[in-house]
Amino acid sequence: MEERLKKQLDFSLEIDKEKSVFRQTHLSGHGRNENDAEHAWHMAIMAYLLREYANEEVDITKVMLMCLIHDIVEIDAGDTYTYDEERKKTQAEREEAAKQRIYSLLPDDQREELAGLFDEFEAGETAEARYARAMDNLQPLILNDSNDGSDWKEHGVAADQVYGRQSRTKLGSEKLYEITDAIIKKHISKGNLK
Amino acid sequence: MEERLKKQLDFSLEIDKEKSVFRQTHLSGHGRNENDAEHAWHMAIMAYLLREYANEEVDITKVMLMCLIHDIVEIDAGDTYTYDEERKKTQAEREEAAKQRIYSLLPDDQREELAGLFDEFEAGETAEARYARAMDNLQPLILNDSNDGSDWKEHGVAADQVYGRQSRTKLGSEKLYEITDAIIKKHISKGNLK
Repeated sequence: MEERLKKQLDFSLEIDKEKSVFRQTHLSGHGRNENDAEHAWHMAIMAYLLREYANEEVDITKVMLMCLIHDIVEIDAGDTYTYDEERKKTQAEREEAAKQRIYSLLPDDQREELAGLFDEFEAGETAEARYARAMDNLQPLILNDSNDGSDWKEHGVAADQVYGRQSRTKLGSEKLYEITDAIIKKHISKGNLK
Repeated sequence: MEERLKKQLDFSLEIDKEKSVFRQTHLSGHGRNENDAEHAWHMAIMAYLLREYANEEVDITKVMLMCLIHDIVEIDAGDTYTYDEERKKTQAEREEAAKQRIYSLLPDDQREELAGLFDEFEAGETAEARYARAMDNLQPLILNDSNDGSDWKEHGVAADQVYGRQSRTKLGSEKLYEITDAIIKKHISKGNLK
C-alpha cells in the first residue's frame, strides 16, 4: 500500500478512540454520559441545519469539519469539564502535545490542514470558528435542558459560570444566544442553577 | 420562539436517540459495539480525508451530510445487520415509515432536503452516493480488521457474503476497493471468514 494511503488509514483507525472519551453531558431521557464522537456528530448536523442564524456568512463545509475534528486531541488530553477551573490550567498544554502526536499520523498536507482547523477553532477569531463554537455550547445545552438541567445540578454549577461560557454563543449567533439566554433563565427560576 | 427555529431544535433533540442504536461492529481494541452516531461521525471524517480516491469528482459537503444523516431512520427502524437476510426483507418498509416521521419534525424545506439526501444515498445512483456508500463499507471494515475479523467470526460470515456487500465499494472508489480486497483475502487466509 502507498505510504500516503497507509497514513490516512492509520489516522482513521486512531480516531476511533475518540468514542471512548466521555463528557459530563448526559444523553436525553436521562441517559448515559455522552462521548466526544457523538457530540461532534451532533454538532456538525446542528451547524448545517442552523446555519441561517450565523451572524456572518460562513463556509459551512469548514464549520462542519471543525465540529467533527475539534475534540480529537482529547484522545490523549482527556475531556476537560468546562467548569473545572483546576484542570483547565493545564488544558492548552495537554491538547498541544496531543495535536502534535495525533495529526502527525497524517500525510504532511493533511496534518497541516486539520491541525490548522483545530487551531482556528480554538482561537475563535474567524466567522467559522465563532459559529462552530456556538454549536459547541448549544448542543450540550439542549441535552441538559431536556434533562431538566441535571448536569448542572450534579456539579452545583452557578448561573454566572454558565453565562461565562454560553455568552460566547453571541459571537457566533445573536439569534441562538436569545434561545440560550431564555433556557438559562428558565433553569435559574426553577432552581436548577445556583 | 419562532415556529421554524422550534422545529429545527426539536429535530436536533430527536436525533440524539441515534446514539442509542447499536450496530454489530465493535470498536477497535476489541471494544464495545459501536452506535450509529459514532459510525456516521467516523464515516464523515474518512470521506473528507480520502476524497482524492473517489472515482468521480464529488461535492464533498453533500457526501459528508449523507454520511452524517444516513442512519437517522434507524432511530425508529433499528439497525439491520448487513448479513441478516430475514430482517433485510422488511428494512425498506421500516425505514420509509421512519423517514416520514422523523424528517417531518423539520421545516418543510429542510425535511425535503434531508429526506432527499437519504433517498439519494439509498439509491446509490449519484457520484456522491456511490462514494458515501463506499465509506459505509470501509469504516466498519477497518474496525473489524483491527479486531482480527471478530465481527465476522462471531456471526460465522462467509467470504462471498462479504464480497457481496464490499464489492459495491468499487463503484465509489476503485482504489479503496483494492485495499478492501486485500483485507478480505488476508482474513480468508487466516480462517476468519468461511
